[in-house]
Amino acid sequence: MVVTVVEIHVRKDKVDDFIRATVDNHRMSVKEPGNLRFDILQSCEEPCRFTLYEAYLSEEAASCHKKTDHYLRWRETVADWMERPRVGIAHKVIEPLSLSSWQLRVEG
Amino acid sequence: MVVTVVEIHVRKDKVDDFIRATVDNHRMSVKEPGNLRFDILQSCEEPCRFTLYEAYLSEEAASCHKKTDHYLRWRETVADWMERPRVGIAHKVIEPLSLSSWQLRVEG
Repeated sequence: MVVTVVEIHVRKDKVDDFIRATVDNHRMSVKEPGNLRFDILQSCEEPCRFTLYEAYLSEEAASCHKKTDHYLRWRETVADWMERPRVGIAHKVIEPLSLSSWQLRVEG
Repeated sequence: MVVTVVEIHVRKDKVDDFIRATVDNHRMSVKEPGNLRFDILQSCEEPCRFTLYEAYLSEEAASCHKKTDHYLRWRETVADWMERPRVGIAHKVIEPLSLSSWQLRVEG
């Protein structure tokens, strides 16, 4: 498993647009076969600051995400809305290691 | 729901000890009634850098965590192992909003 934590600072006037575009990306991303989570979080204290929590089964699955139409569309859409360059850090999972703790979605 | 993302930089000579102490904290934390996730992640590029992803049902449940024996023990145990002060940022959840996407654990 690999989890990328992305820190994003959005321009104040673009927060609502950013949320809309990122929710679209979330909805498509969680349908990718190798996706385990794609959480969108907004800082309580600084509403312009967001964290994306993107968990994938493998590095290969995480790489595939960056080639999808929805990711590329999102990246282009939000490009000018960043207050500063976003930072994504890839992590290995220490806990929980059981895949059942990551595979949330009931099929169907 | 509230998700606290904690960034931690550990002294190089204390990485293994930190993992051990934090796994203990994880095991107890996921048993708290208001806990939804307590993920421990290690940066792939910088193994001294960790992220904790602590999801709780409510701010109250998140506050209760900080009063538990296991949290207080962990805090004291790791205090001298930090390379720099750790930073925890509380977030509200934008997606996924359905509680079923957070409640992982099958009871029993």
